Amino acid sequence: MSGPLFDRIALIGLGLIGSSIALAARRGTLAREIAGTSRSPATRARAGELGFLDHVADTAAGAVKDADLVIIGVPVRATGAVVREIAPHLKKGAIVSDAGSVKASVVRDVEPLLPDGVSFVGGHPIAGTEESGPDAGFAELFDGRWCVLTPAAKSTPEAVEKLCQFWTALGSRVETMSAAHHDLVLAITSHVPHLIAYNIVGTVSELETDTKSEVIKFSASGFRDFTRIAASDPVMWRDIFLSNKDAVLEMLGRFTEDLTALQRAIRRDDGQALLEMFTRTRAIRRGVIEAGQDTQEPDFGRTRGLHDADDH
Amino acid sequence: MSGPLFDRIALIGLGLIGSSIALAARRGTLAREIAGTSRSPATRARAGELGFLDHVADTAAGAVKDADLVIIGVPVRATGAVVREIAPHLKKGAIVSDAGSVKASVVRDVEPLLPDGVSFVGGHPIAGTEESGPDAGFAELFDGRWCVLTPAAKSTPEAVEKLCQFWTALGSRVETMSAAHHDLVLAITSHVPHLIAYNIVGTVSELETDTKSEVIKFSASGFRDFTRIAASDPVMWRDIFLSNKDAVLEMLGRFTEDLTALQRAIRRDDGQALLEMFTRTRAIRRGVIEAGQDTQEPDFGRTRGLHDADDH
Repeated sequence: MSGPLFDRIALIGLGLIGSSIALAARRGTLAREIAGTSRSPATRARAGELGFLDHVADTAAGAVKDADLVIIGVPVRATGAVVREIAPHLKKGAIVSDAGSVKASVVRDVEPLLPDGVSFVGGHPIAGTEESGPDAGFAELFDGRWCVLTPAAKSTPEAVEKLCQFWTALGSRVETMSAAHHDLVLAITSHVPHLIAYNIVGTVSELETDTKSEVIKFSASGFRDFTRIAASDPVMWRDIFLSNKDAVLEMLGRFTEDLTALQRAIRRDDGQALLEMFTRTRAIRRGVIEAGQDTQEPDFGRTRGLHDADDH
Repeated sequence: MSGPLFDRIALIGLGLIGSSIALAARRGTLAREIAGTSRSPATRARAGELGFLDHVADTAAGAVKDADLVIIGVPVRATGAVVREIAPHLKKGAIVSDAGSVKASVVRDVEPLLPDGVSFVGGHPIAGTEESGPDAGFAELFDGRWCVLTPAAKSTPEAVEKLCQFWTALGSRVETMSAAHHDLVLAITSHVPHLIAYNIVGTVSELETDTKSEVIKFSASGFRDFTRIAASDPVMWRDIFLSNKDAVLEMLGRFTEDLTALQRAIRRDDGQALLEMFTRTRAIRRGVIEAGQDTQEPDFGRTRGLHDADDH
């Protein structure tokens, strides 16, 4: 009964998520051996230098050999191609999972490609930073964060249970739901917020040069909060929007309707409507803090920390 | 030549900004005496308990008696009424300033009310947190942050110079520009970002109860960043949007046009357009960090700090 949860884990994709899974799995001794690979030779070389894997494979096919658990951490629209490549090399009884921010399209892409005797359970760790690449990973990334699993037709109950144990051991709290429900909730929680952050930063980037410098200079008045998430990986986010198109467009429609109503209230000097709306939104912030999902330090705790940097 | 910059300072409004000015002015010994008042009896009582003033006055008229510098830190649409009340009691030669986030409407409201021999110089410290009230203030709030002064018809060069010295001594870097230009730059840097943050939090608040709980639960995936600024003071922000209506509607128009283009790219599967846009926005984040306006710690440095809270 004792010993690691898996004999061999393979990680396909060694960015922020892949490298953090390796580091957290090592911390918890969750596998006898952790192999991994990246499509990029530079990333493979860097992973070798950083030393968070037992074996850096040249190909995905090589990495998954004898693996009991394969986790694919690549942009969502690349997941199908990875599964196509590894399918003939998967061990009988292996569990395949992923870490993508969209689930229904991944399940749709992956299920037809799986050989018999292999389980697929979609996964999405709700954790990350705006940074990417193998240097960005750290073992504590998943501690206390949620990981959503989305079992589907090719998920055996045993595979779901084992993956749940794995993510719990990585430090996460695990929740299970359908892929479609996940995609709808994440559209408004994550995808639309990223889209509007990208959008306002884009609007600023098109201002004339002088004004743009001033916006950057005075960005502590609000804008800088948006620049952080608009610095996230472009390929990853392109794939998310295209893969979760229906839910994103639905939620974006609601956002735009509400924004039009606010715009109308401003144009008509309807201070009462603005006040009611701005009062209502404070309750949501309290909910986020009570749920342990953000720090209650004012300004994310960063205002005081900035002063040293400014003294330079 | 030595001694404090002002004999007596009066602060009208004792929220985050007023209380922080008092604390920073004390730290720098910038006045022999600091008086202040608030319209709210509870705030006056609390200011007395916190002890950051030498004298808590019952009325604005009482607070400004013999003051060389008066700083009004109230919601922008209340500024005119404050000046109307204090005008007959202002000392000859006094400098009156404010800390509002909109400048042209304040200048328009205030100038006709000023007695002869009194200067008005609009001011806007680009500093703050989402918190409000006298307990939220701290002496370091302005350190290294910008303060914009907007001299107009009733600003003598001597008053501008003295106010510049004052804000520099409070820890700020000072920049001077016209009120109209300030309002245009802040519309896109601060006002529209707050509006869209309020808006998306409002959109979430109208979701059905179950989905709303899940959005809060998974808010670390993006949404939580918006809830912070949407927790800012509702009255202050109502006044800002109504007082800077033209610039806000202009910048909001640009934002909406750009968002419509992004929406169209998603609907048409135009991955190339998305990728180009998401790549362009990363440069702005680098600019913000290079300008010392945000921490370069991933996730504002908060990811690691959250784990303790999650262990509860």
